[in-house]
Amino acid sequence: MEASLKQLDAFFNPKSVAVVGATKKINKAGHVIFKNFVENKRRGVFKGEIYPVNPHEDYILGFPCYPKLTKIAGELDLVVIVVPANIVPEIMKDAAAKKVKATVIISSGFGEVGNHELEREVVAIAKKAGIRVLGPNCLGVYDSQTGVDMLFLPETKILTTGEEVVATPRPMMGNIAIVTQSGAFGASALDYLAGRQMGVSKFVSFGNKSDVDEAEMLHYLLHDNETKVILLYVEDVKNGRALIEAASKITCKKPVIALKAGKTEAGARAAASHTGAIAGSDQVYTAAFTQAGILRVRDMEEFFDAAKALVMQPPAAGRNIAIITDAGGPGIMAADECELQGMIVKKFSERTLQKFERLKKEGKIPKFAATTNPVDLTGSVTSEMYELAAEVVFQDPEIHGVVLLGLHHTPALQEDYIDKVAAVASKHDKPIVACDIGETEMALHVRSRFDKLGIPTYASPEDAARAMAALVRYGLYLKKKGCFEEYLRNFLREKRKRATQQTR
Amino acid sequence: MEASLKQLDAFFNPKSVAVVGATKKINKAGHVIFKNFVENKRRGVFKGEIYPVNPHEDYILGFPCYPKLTKIAGELDLVVIVVPANIVPEIMKDAAAKKVKATVIISSGFGEVGNHELEREVVAIAKKAGIRVLGPNCLGVYDSQTGVDMLFLPETKILTTGEEVVATPRPMMGNIAIVTQSGAFGASALDYLAGRQMGVSKFVSFGNKSDVDEAEMLHYLLHDNETKVILLYVEDVKNGRALIEAASKITCKKPVIALKAGKTEAGARAAASHTGAIAGSDQVYTAAFTQAGILRVRDMEEFFDAAKALVMQPPAAGRNIAIITDAGGPGIMAADECELQGMIVKKFSERTLQKFERLKKEGKIPKFAATTNPVDLTGSVTSEMYELAAEVVFQDPEIHGVVLLGLHHTPALQEDYIDKVAAVASKHDKPIVACDIGETEMALHVRSRFDKLGIPTYASPEDAARAMAALVRYGLYLKKKGCFEEYLRNFLREKRKRATQQTR
Repeated sequence: MEASLKQLDAFFNPKSVAVVGATKKINKAGHVIFKNFVENKRRGVFKGEIYPVNPHEDYILGFPCYPKLTKIAGELDLVVIVVPANIVPEIMKDAAAKKVKATVIISSGFGEVGNHELEREVVAIAKKAGIRVLGPNCLGVYDSQTGVDMLFLPETKILTTGEEVVATPRPMMGNIAIVTQSGAFGASALDYLAGRQMGVSKFVSFGNKSDVDEAEMLHYLLHDNETKVILLYVEDVKNGRALIEAASKITCKKPVIALKAGKTEAGARAAASHTGAIAGSDQVYTAAFTQAGILRVRDMEEFFDAAKALVMQPPAAGRNIAIITDAGGPGIMAADECELQGMIVKKFSERTLQKFERLKKEGKIPKFAATTNPVDLTGSVTSEMYELAAEVVFQDPEIHGVVLLGLHHTPALQEDYIDKVAAVASKHDKPIVACDIGETEMALHVRSRFDKLGIPTYASPEDAARAMAALVRYGLYLKKKGCFEEYLRNFLREKRKRATQQTR
Repeated sequence: MEASLKQLDAFFNPKSVAVVGATKKINKAGHVIFKNFVENKRRGVFKGEIYPVNPHEDYILGFPCYPKLTKIAGELDLVVIVVPANIVPEIMKDAAAKKVKATVIISSGFGEVGNHELEREVVAIAKKAGIRVLGPNCLGVYDSQTGVDMLFLPETKILTTGEEVVATPRPMMGNIAIVTQSGAFGASALDYLAGRQMGVSKFVSFGNKSDVDEAEMLHYLLHDNETKVILLYVEDVKNGRALIEAASKITCKKPVIALKAGKTEAGARAAASHTGAIAGSDQVYTAAFTQAGILRVRDMEEFFDAAKALVMQPPAAGRNIAIITDAGGPGIMAADECELQGMIVKKFSERTLQKFERLKKEGKIPKFAATTNPVDLTGSVTSEMYELAAEVVFQDPEIHGVVLLGLHHTPALQEDYIDKVAAVASKHDKPIVACDIGETEMALHVRSRFDKLGIPTYASPEDAARAMAALVRYGLYLKKKGCFEEYLRNFLREKRKRATQQTR
């Protein structure tokens, strides 16, 4: 690993960490963060040394407390700083004396409230000592593998009814990395992904990004084996050229999905008063992102939906999409959205149409099923019909991806159609996304079963079409760059590896 | 009530109904539909007489069975037809002899599969006898008040695990009417609304709409006291002028939200093979809908989100929206979407800014809170701060609506902020929508509490902004038509009435 990467590694996998501002007082960030480390260490997840630093305490949660960093005997990789802004320069000097590799400044009260000079002072001390800085004014790092967890937001809350409920959950281990300028949005993202059973590899909140920025983080994540898809939330980019360069290097290997806020005048004004960011023209961002292969999305929902698709499915080799449905209306809605997103719901080839005709003659699909694309198996659909129709469209060499709508309301449809469709899909290298509409038991069951079998499902036909659009956009980018085949090979190898691990 | 309306009333509130094709065989539509009536009658919900018609049975579910319609002694308001297409003409002749008011043809096998002549024959018999026809090829009617329920899709399904789960739920009583060309989408809509605890007044599925169409149904719903908002799903409109006329009469009293599928070439092709509909140019629909005050939405999610907003909140008197947030990033996302939707996130007036300055000086909101709009109360937010900030922006005469983001992850925020905000909102006549992001316990609790207090909540800032856009679009239409004040007065009176009923 190159030296700069090794240093960034201290943020995610430190051999030793000190929390300056650790305290016994509950609800304080300095308490929550230190406690996170203590609990993960006791569970054997965090394997490094941990040191609370606070001149007013002897012990915190059973660990001997140090009055200052320089009193710690061993080597220090990482320092988490949770003290008032005005004493941060002093702490950074101690960190320099201790030769730490990296610091995370959770504290706010810097550039975001006009204290630019204080921020510059702190960064200057760090730079001189070769210390990397994350923040200030940030939520820091969460790593599902190593047990580094700086999230100080309360994991649970007590309602006025006396009930305790999960408030800021940690998602399970997984392959999505979250790189976010907004800590609050980052916490929301963790909450969303946890609830949707989507796994996270790493979480980094930048805040004012006085030193380490998204460009460097992309470079780091390129080498992170656990990370397969990167979710990037930005309000402004200070060093555009660096981001484009870093992104260009990673986007052939790992998709980067960006939600860029501050698109409009009001949005940009809000961004300026938030992290002090001055957003440039929105078109400039779009152009730069496109050039670097960053997939820009329209809103929060598309952000997460695209990540789900790209983590579970291979990219599409072209724009031609087949739709299979048992419900006419939703089939039309999917066809509309596919075309609006630049995909093509192409009439099938003669060969494919003939296959469907044969299935009709053999009584295997309804006589009045529409088969020109969308394929509408009608309300008489059965599991076997989905299986047969999926096989036909997957085999069509002109088709690059499949949107499958399986509305469970039809009388004869049993939920084993999901397993049958997944078995067909697993024999082909083309992407498939699914949809079932509804918010009660059966719909939730259907969507969860699809997800479990590696087929991302969505709650509306248009969401499913937009998820397919992400797979198509990414596939076309990879094709243009000449790295489609390599990405696909790697993706399929990883997928098979995961499948083998699961069956063990 | 005018005569034509009275006749349509037979679909929703018949004094007597016969089900032709009723059977003992489970899973058959003729069984499920008759059973629905039997069960609702036994529960005292359906108050009319019910007659099974089937020449091969003596009794069905305890009710004496008639060999044909003409053998029924009493008067017949409504006949539901669930027999093969080819014998429907014969049934219709019997219905004519019985002088029934209305028939619903559930059966398929007509125009949608090319049998146009058969469909014309049936309609001609009905027309001559003055009988109104719904369908064929439809799901018919569901009325949450009267217990009319023709949904034959299985209410529950048995999974392969042996568990029974809700598959096609009935939503609770409420104020949303669903008027849909696609039965499958209609069933999905019921499933969605049931799961989201949104109440439904009436549900009508048209299918081939050989006689009764959406124009007449809008006219009927204008006079339906339970219906406050109409969700209209269409693929094609046969009589555009009639729809525009009917819509123009209702949209000053009740918002009509339209999801028009078949927007693209592929979508239109799919529509043609679905109900035989030939969709016209999409721009023509947009222009006609705009003229008639029908709110056209982009996709399924916006469809339901707009209905939720319009059922719960008054329309906005203008485009100026205030955003209150405790999270910078999501505040920017909301501001962006508001402006992209044609609303204005206007800088506050001097007077409002001064009020916020006073709150800062008094230490009642954070010193570094942004207050130019969005108002960012920061991660230090408390319930009281939300209450104070809401009061300030509601009082600003230049502000027409409020988007409130209450991200629950912040440490000091207790969920009683919801009740405080609702209390402030209830003193004003302006609309408010809310958002909390997350999919685990606390987020679900927050959203459900807001909904319960009559403030529609959404799971993303952009969804909340788009819901507000529906309130703004509708408000501007009402203003243009000079009916804003009257609508608002009625809306607020109804709302107070509901509130009084709840506290009783």
